[in-house]
Amino acid sequence: MSETPYQALTIDTLPARLDAHLRQRLGSPPEDWRVREVGDGNLNLVFIVEGAKDGVIVKQALPYVRLVGDSWPLPLKRSYFEYHALTRQAARDPGRVPAIYHFDEGQALLVMEYLTPHKILRRDLEAGVKHAGLAEQLGDFCARTLFRGSDLSMKTAERKADVALFSDNVALCDITETLVFTDPYYAAKLNRHTTPQLDRLVAQLRADVDLKVAAQQLKLKFCNHAETLMHGDLHTGSIMAHEGEARVIDPEFAAYGPFGFDVGMLIANFLMAYFAQSGYERHAGGRDDFRAWTLDVAEGVWDRFRTEFTHLWRSERTGILYPAALYEDQGHALAAEQALAALLQDIWVDAMGFAGVEMHRRILGLAHISEFEHIESTDLRAACEAKALRLGRHLAVNRARLLGFADVRAAAKRLEGEGIN
Amino acid sequence: MSETPYQALTIDTLPARLDAHLRQRLGSPPEDWRVREVGDGNLNLVFIVEGAKDGVIVKQALPYVRLVGDSWPLPLKRSYFEYHALTRQAARDPGRVPAIYHFDEGQALLVMEYLTPHKILRRDLEAGVKHAGLAEQLGDFCARTLFRGSDLSMKTAERKADVALFSDNVALCDITETLVFTDPYYAAKLNRHTTPQLDRLVAQLRADVDLKVAAQQLKLKFCNHAETLMHGDLHTGSIMAHEGEARVIDPEFAAYGPFGFDVGMLIANFLMAYFAQSGYERHAGGRDDFRAWTLDVAEGVWDRFRTEFTHLWRSERTGILYPAALYEDQGHALAAEQALAALLQDIWVDAMGFAGVEMHRRILGLAHISEFEHIESTDLRAACEAKALRLGRHLAVNRARLLGFADVRAAAKRLEGEGIN
Repeated sequence: MSETPYQALTIDTLPARLDAHLRQRLGSPPEDWRVREVGDGNLNLVFIVEGAKDGVIVKQALPYVRLVGDSWPLPLKRSYFEYHALTRQAARDPGRVPAIYHFDEGQALLVMEYLTPHKILRRDLEAGVKHAGLAEQLGDFCARTLFRGSDLSMKTAERKADVALFSDNVALCDITETLVFTDPYYAAKLNRHTTPQLDRLVAQLRADVDLKVAAQQLKLKFCNHAETLMHGDLHTGSIMAHEGEARVIDPEFAAYGPFGFDVGMLIANFLMAYFAQSGYERHAGGRDDFRAWTLDVAEGVWDRFRTEFTHLWRSERTGILYPAALYEDQGHALAAEQALAALLQDIWVDAMGFAGVEMHRRILGLAHISEFEHIESTDLRAACEAKALRLGRHLAVNRARLLGFADVRAAAKRLEGEGIN
Repeated sequence: MSETPYQALTIDTLPARLDAHLRQRLGSPPEDWRVREVGDGNLNLVFIVEGAKDGVIVKQALPYVRLVGDSWPLPLKRSYFEYHALTRQAARDPGRVPAIYHFDEGQALLVMEYLTPHKILRRDLEAGVKHAGLAEQLGDFCARTLFRGSDLSMKTAERKADVALFSDNVALCDITETLVFTDPYYAAKLNRHTTPQLDRLVAQLRADVDLKVAAQQLKLKFCNHAETLMHGDLHTGSIMAHEGEARVIDPEFAAYGPFGFDVGMLIANFLMAYFAQSGYERHAGGRDDFRAWTLDVAEGVWDRFRTEFTHLWRSERTGILYPAALYEDQGHALAAEQALAALLQDIWVDAMGFAGVEMHRRILGLAHISEFEHIESTDLRAACEAKALRLGRHLAVNRARLLGFADVRAAAKRLEGEGIN
């Protein structure tokens, strides 16, 4: 199939085209398969294909941004980067990403494990559905993939070759570079926000020199600081969850970047969920318990990340950075602890900065989040969004002044009118 | 010639093998050429070839480290990276690097402009020979190559492709990663230092937890922070000078790395020259004037770097970072100045850190510098080296606490016993 030119799949052509790859796994002939196209994302075709024995996901890139159409071309090669990211993540945190059954580079096509009845986490954050163990699983995922994808762990020649491989993921990096770090901070074409309610605050943020400098300092880190292989788009729409199991999907934005990016984006999405809750309360306080849980998850992600990263630092630090030869082997184990503390502090500062800009771009930029979008009253929605915008500014500008998550929690609660605990 | 297998040149084979490429430029037939092998470096063959009309340099990589022999293999491809670095540097700071006349990748061979009667700057720093305009030319070189090789200036897709190209320069990066940032700080095999005079200080430095943490923090930046295309080995042995003209050679260590690396290494080498002067005084104070000049050059390099970088920031900031669309175009020109000040501060801090480790590795590691090595009395040599080691520690550990070059100058003078000015 790789030799035939790229052709987008349809519900009708899929069975014949993938027969050879799927028949055995699905346990029935193609004419008996149930095929649905379910791509609700912005970029790709996604099919669920079910047979007698099993089901699979077929994800195929389109040569343009699905949301916009062929006026915005996007390289098919993103499928290649997704494939390579998935294989690395599977090795670094086994079981957390979907298994890959088949990859066809020419067709920009991945056949993967069908996660069912898992749901996109973001929907549950809107619906008010908790998941046990979420922070732990996501914190571990970040720590393991980020630690093991860095010069703290990898053979550096392999890491450098991998940097070269992923440095061609230009188009998807460009989306982040532009839509996250720059567009939200001026009146760029693709922006939108809840208007007129937010107009005044938006103008204020776009005139905020400290914020606009911070955003570009963070952009420099994102673009240039190739510390580890990031997922690159680790928000709550890239996570599927069901009864205590979280799975991480869609790493097509994977690139080498700073340790703090995935963690910061993830935390930001739980903070936004926190502020969205009042949009869904049928009676005052109706979401108090769930609201508190979203903050706990945000804090838990950071705590678990730090705990697991520390564990890996002490047990798997075999790369060229901070070698044991200099520290433990010289009887200076505390030197390694000092270095770890400093590195975790740097990651924390970066993560808070990235969290801040993520909150801004989801309210001021092109790609919004459903927790806010689905709040019917635009007044109520704007009130929720304004809190997130203010916290985002606080985090981005003061990222080096936040001593720990308690400071973030206090700021969030003050904005939410919960008082400082 | 590219199709024939690699073969090292000799004085005897060179004329016939390069006839086609050189005859016209040299203005005489090969049998009339004067060929000398002058490679005094550690890695390569270097020939001067002179004919009736002109002379050229022929530089050919050997498949091993010349200094050590074939027990230490080194990829021929370093010649390819040198070629690519030279072409980029020539475009970014015209006239500062030797012109390239011919490149043969298969033979790992570069034919270049013969700089004559230029001498390696390091020799003049030992001999006490000043050069007018040195700081300005080197500061400009750093600012122009580093600014124009970054996301402040380049099209980011081109920069990312270039990152991929240079990320294969693994072997030469490994030399820096190991010999600069790690080996000096423990009893690694290839180390040597002036013994027994320095033994006690060396033991003290290798037990210095803050220093050993700083060194690895700087290594992380060197390995991972791909901010711009560095020369990668910009010490005073990579500079040739004659009567007010400095030229920069030998960028085979070129790689993407932090803005501060080249600047810091360069400053360190002038600081070491400062401390070496008392090794060459025939009477007390005989080198006072020259000694003062080396500090002035170190300061001048930083000043000119900052001035030219600022000029380029204001006039050529066309890359994806800190775009005018966010700042000047919104009437927030001072935001751009604020961002510049913060970035220059970051570069300064990094540069001071890199300067510190460079001073250490030149005294504790494998590759020493002639200014110290040629001091005949080992007591005197050790006294000079000890001052440089102490300043190196001060810079590396306190890099974020130095407000400007005046602080460096004061520390250097105090160590030299000149008192604080």
